[in-house]
Amino acid sequence: MKIEAVDFFYLSMPQVTDEADGSQDALLVRVVAGGHVGWGECEASPLVSIAAFVTPMSHGVCRPVSDSVLGQEINGPEDIARISALVEYNSMDLLQAPHTLSGVEMALWDLLGKARGEPVWRMLGYARSEPKVPYASVLFGDTPQQTLERARASLANGFVAGKFGWGPIGRGTPADDADHFMAAREGLGKDGILLVDVGQIWGEDVDAAAARLTALNDAGALWLEEPFHGSAYEAYGALTDRLPEGGVRLAGGEAAHNVFMARHLIDYGKVGYVQIDCGRIGGIGPAHKVAKYAVEKGVTFVNHTFTSHLALSASLQPYAGLADHRICEYPAEPKPLALDFVANHFDRDGNGEIAAPNAPGLGIEVSEAGMRKYIRTVEIRVDGELIHESGKSI
Amino acid sequence: MKIEAVDFFYLSMPQVTDEADGSQDALLVRVVAGGHVGWGECEASPLVSIAAFVTPMSHGVCRPVSDSVLGQEINGPEDIARISALVEYNSMDLLQAPHTLSGVEMALWDLLGKARGEPVWRMLGYARSEPKVPYASVLFGDTPQQTLERARASLANGFVAGKFGWGPIGRGTPADDADHFMAAREGLGKDGILLVDVGQIWGEDVDAAAARLTALNDAGALWLEEPFHGSAYEAYGALTDRLPEGGVRLAGGEAAHNVFMARHLIDYGKVGYVQIDCGRIGGIGPAHKVAKYAVEKGVTFVNHTFTSHLALSASLQPYAGLADHRICEYPAEPKPLALDFVANHFDRDGNGEIAAPNAPGLGIEVSEAGMRKYIRTVEIRVDGELIHESGKSI
Repeated sequence: MKIEAVDFFYLSMPQVTDEADGSQDALLVRVVAGGHVGWGECEASPLVSIAAFVTPMSHGVCRPVSDSVLGQEINGPEDIARISALVEYNSMDLLQAPHTLSGVEMALWDLLGKARGEPVWRMLGYARSEPKVPYASVLFGDTPQQTLERARASLANGFVAGKFGWGPIGRGTPADDADHFMAAREGLGKDGILLVDVGQIWGEDVDAAAARLTALNDAGALWLEEPFHGSAYEAYGALTDRLPEGGVRLAGGEAAHNVFMARHLIDYGKVGYVQIDCGRIGGIGPAHKVAKYAVEKGVTFVNHTFTSHLALSASLQPYAGLADHRICEYPAEPKPLALDFVANHFDRDGNGEIAAPNAPGLGIEVSEAGMRKYIRTVEIRVDGELIHESGKSI
Repeated sequence: MKIEAVDFFYLSMPQVTDEADGSQDALLVRVVAGGHVGWGECEASPLVSIAAFVTPMSHGVCRPVSDSVLGQEINGPEDIARISALVEYNSMDLLQAPHTLSGVEMALWDLLGKARGEPVWRMLGYARSEPKVPYASVLFGDTPQQTLERARASLANGFVAGKFGWGPIGRGTPADDADHFMAAREGLGKDGILLVDVGQIWGEDVDAAAARLTALNDAGALWLEEPFHGSAYEAYGALTDRLPEGGVRLAGGEAAHNVFMARHLIDYGKVGYVQIDCGRIGGIGPAHKVAKYAVEKGVTFVNHTFTSHLALSASLQPYAGLADHRICEYPAEPKPLALDFVANHFDRDGNGEIAAPNAPGLGIEVSEAGMRKYIRTVEIRVDGELIHESGKSI
């Protein structure tokens, strides 16, 4: 099959706010080859990722992503790897390229799976799709009382695992933060899985992070996520060396835009959990490489997903068959946009668990009708020539 | 002073080819504040870097670069650092942001220097601008004879240092490559400084690279540049461990888009030379941090510049005062575009050396008339609204 067309659809809510909620916009990618259609989703900044696909070439290793994709043969997983390697080399100097490639690569897996009648996870070599324990992500409250109420609401909504993020943590004293951690624990109950995400608040200040470790451990937090800048491996490693034995571990990796970066967070940063966003790392193939590496190193793989069920399905594939890697991020309360363009959500089962769909490709049906009210038109002209136009014909 | 305007100018040659020559296009940035004007240059992919400045916000930490720049106060170097930190945090999830910021940051230094009547290197704390030994970059020939002729031509043109890059190296046998290395040495003469750049050809294959070490060493190469993917620190480190004592060292770092990445290439990759492109790492401030770190670690700092003398001046500032860090990359034969938009090139002195200008700011006068014949117009519309237009009024 030959890749005949790659189309982008930029969706957004009528109003995008400054909350750290990635479901406020989306960049969908539709790939057509051999009469089959595949869908993927880039994370994030739709306009910039579109520009990286269509930009004029700057020089031999700063080419638009389209140069390495359009017209290529796609007949098996090895072609997806080959196309990805082409993009990596030919767009070496185009920083945004991995984010653009991510959605295209997912769509290629989806298309290939549909053409073969196979789920992506089976093409990756897994015998079955194992159930995962989804966690709901909520923000810490402004007060410990609010945090407590949010934890109770999360539990009442059937989530045994809850991730609390951002908010006041790291902006006041360690004692203030401790009150929030204990409130979250109280709300989730003693058996709940408590996860804490601080969104890089400490830059590379190991002491500031270390001042919260006892409280995190006392609250029984399973992980502390992104204490530092995504590339601050030394700080991750130094904080890991100060963790209490058998207690809270570090988690990170969402910023990785290639396999090396994820490996470094494991090897140099010594994280216990490596969190990969398939919409950033270059798609499913690189994420699967990270999952295999994590197994080898005794680290737990976790998806990073804060958008739609299309992105969720893609992000589960790389570790779908790893029965011991149980936890998964689940966009529990996305914006309507992320709900409306997917026709078949996969809900939690009777145990409150989810699994990558047992269906061809990613198993997700994209609804073009559901996209319509969120679509944004984009036009890019260079020297008067229209080099990109999207959103008009939906 | 308040930042009133940031304007982009996308220039390119009428025809851009697939050769690895970064001077085929350019993205210039003009910043206006307090009646002063500063200029900078982003490297690379002009359209994508423009998009990262003007794109609609995706969420709170995926904002356009403009959000953290326009309207900010700029009264001293600490403001430049503050604005850079704002961009880093607010555009955390926008991968292209560091490339966009790079040109803006340079322009802020230029503007501040002009407002104060001080060269940028003096604002960085250096007492003087030390002379540097420029090397000319040429491509390896298709045959050793061609390589020999190119080396002779480079020497005849007054360059005691020559960098040979890309071409057939790594695509044939180690013996084929050895012939090219010896041809380059012969052409440069026994006192010439021989540098070899292989453009990531071996991915992370340490053995393939190691098979060339004896020949490189016999040819007296000072460094082997980018044997591997920019993030393959483990491979860099493993190859360093196999280097002959006192001989050729590794060089790399041009892909670094933050200070951490450059530090990691030093600490984990054990390079002897760290090469920083001010147009990618976020500008002059981060590059200066790397220069200080290199001094601390006994590693030599080198600029990476393959475009204009505006980019060259910016890239010399971070290590202008480091007398022992002598070598510098010099765009010896850029395309006419890169020559025409700069009104005052800084040529080699009687010793064949160059130095960062002793003049306010970057000391480079940008010629808008010289830009005119290369300017490309850009228009970006989202939902019909023109969110960016450039190139029409030059």
